[in-house]
Amino acid sequence: MSLVVVGSMAFDDIETPFGKSDKIVGGAATYIAWSASNFSHDIKQISVVGGDFPQTELDELHGRGVDLSGVQVKKDQKSFYWSGKYHMDMNTRDTLDTQLNVLADFNPVVPESYQDCEFLMLGNLVPAVQMSVIRQLKQRPRLIVMDTMNFWMQTALGDLEAVIGQVDVLLVNDSEARELSGQFSLVKAARTIMKMGPKYLIIKKGEHGALLFHEERVFFAPALPLEEVFDPTGAGDTFAGGFIGHIARTRDISYDNMKTAIIVGSAMASFTVEKFGTQRLREITKEDIDERIQEFVQLVNFDITLI
Amino acid sequence: MSLVVVGSMAFDDIETPFGKSDKIVGGAATYIAWSASNFSHDIKQISVVGGDFPQTELDELHGRGVDLSGVQVKKDQKSFYWSGKYHMDMNTRDTLDTQLNVLADFNPVVPESYQDCEFLMLGNLVPAVQMSVIRQLKQRPRLIVMDTMNFWMQTALGDLEAVIGQVDVLLVNDSEARELSGQFSLVKAARTIMKMGPKYLIIKKGEHGALLFHEERVFFAPALPLEEVFDPTGAGDTFAGGFIGHIARTRDISYDNMKTAIIVGSAMASFTVEKFGTQRLREITKEDIDERIQEFVQLVNFDITLI
Repeated sequence: MSLVVVGSMAFDDIETPFGKSDKIVGGAATYIAWSASNFSHDIKQISVVGGDFPQTELDELHGRGVDLSGVQVKKDQKSFYWSGKYHMDMNTRDTLDTQLNVLADFNPVVPESYQDCEFLMLGNLVPAVQMSVIRQLKQRPRLIVMDTMNFWMQTALGDLEAVIGQVDVLLVNDSEARELSGQFSLVKAARTIMKMGPKYLIIKKGEHGALLFHEERVFFAPALPLEEVFDPTGAGDTFAGGFIGHIARTRDISYDNMKTAIIVGSAMASFTVEKFGTQRLREITKEDIDERIQEFVQLVNFDITLI
Repeated sequence: MSLVVVGSMAFDDIETPFGKSDKIVGGAATYIAWSASNFSHDIKQISVVGGDFPQTELDELHGRGVDLSGVQVKKDQKSFYWSGKYHMDMNTRDTLDTQLNVLADFNPVVPESYQDCEFLMLGNLVPAVQMSVIRQLKQRPRLIVMDTMNFWMQTALGDLEAVIGQVDVLLVNDSEARELSGQFSLVKAARTIMKMGPKYLIIKKGEHGALLFHEERVFFAPALPLEEVFDPTGAGDTFAGGFIGHIARTRDISYDNMKTAIIVGSAMASFTVEKFGTQRLREITKEDIDERIQEFVQLVNFDITLI
């Protein structure tokens, strides 16, 4: 029973107040796989890359237990490319260039060997592609988690709403939650969005942490206060990877376990922002992760018996 | 052994997207006393009001155990008046009018009966006035907590730094921490500010919660996600009142107890923002407070054994 991950594998070119990355490997599904592979060794990837995508990257992911038979390699085309610039407030960024390339006409094909999918992680991507993967799975996964972004709210709202209607957990950031719901209050926004389908809603607030909503309940996980956020690219995807990775490892889709999964996701994201791209995710060990999770415990733990 | 509170008692005139308050009672020391009096019945207030300040307000505070012998009433003058307007993002506001009135030449006099001060809460006020109170106390209080604001950084930085050098706990918001330290990263800002004197620093982030720094440790308390923030005026003062009120009740100035005190402060602030001015603080019961604190436990509690 596997974790199937859908999303882009691509190139990013990033500028922050601390430096330039030049062209490096990025993409939602790349970050998700790097992050989740710390917790699950049965990950099956669905994506598309061009002939320019480094074989070493694919080999490394394969070495971490990521099945790449669902990754199409279009040798005569180029991989998706995104270039962006962050300012001191890392919560906002300017897109400098977007080249869809292989993503322009991506038609995902779910291999037969992926039909044992227990958990489906839909990384941020064209909603119609996300929907196509859901439809190709003969049996509905136990849990479908979906990430998306404001771009699809502006360009493909109908398709987006259709996918949102099919998923269990939706991940958006605070401004996207406001845009999708038409509500300024995040509590009201959550209520509106959960009526669209998802039983669980995670609102990511960047350096201000993340909220999990379910029915009338709410859970808050802070972001770790860091000396420096070097490059926030991929933080949300890494968060998603840690979240679904923990769920896949424990096979427990209860609300209580989702709270823990959000802490795991937050811990993983706190590594990604320390260096450009996926670099930190390539360096960290099980011990680093355990230590970071303990920092979260210290960060929020207080003694209620004192009150 | 008492809790001495210093700060303004004044009038506010507030406009938010939800309505207008007209002229109502406000002021840092007013909110602090309303909030702290839920936890301590030995509060001694230092402030100044004009002849226009309602006697009923003074009577009500007195009825809650607040000693007002340090509150000067200048019958032929007017109380401090502030008028401001909030927009949808309640983290920022425009000041429409400020009339210093009695605050213009406020010379605080600490009554002899206040010399048993164990805890000193310096609400936001002219730094020289805060310093005058510290100097008039013959024995240094066990804990001095200070609130301030960016206005004093711009107009009285020398005086402000002198007071900061004398206190144990400093309260500022995130933009003030950045301004005071010249550091964008709040972790770096905290380190810089703690070198100026305070062993503990609380950085308030409004709807994004609050951070407590001490040596190399950090604790985070979220703000309660609310359907609507009706009026944020006084939220920071109420937070300070809950914080010092809990410390005064428990007489425990350990780091661990400060974490709990921050949760208490956050719970109290979550009431204040529900209505204009001090209105909610006048309505709530011990049961309301206990229930709200339990909501904070639910909000941040996760099961580490699952990881």
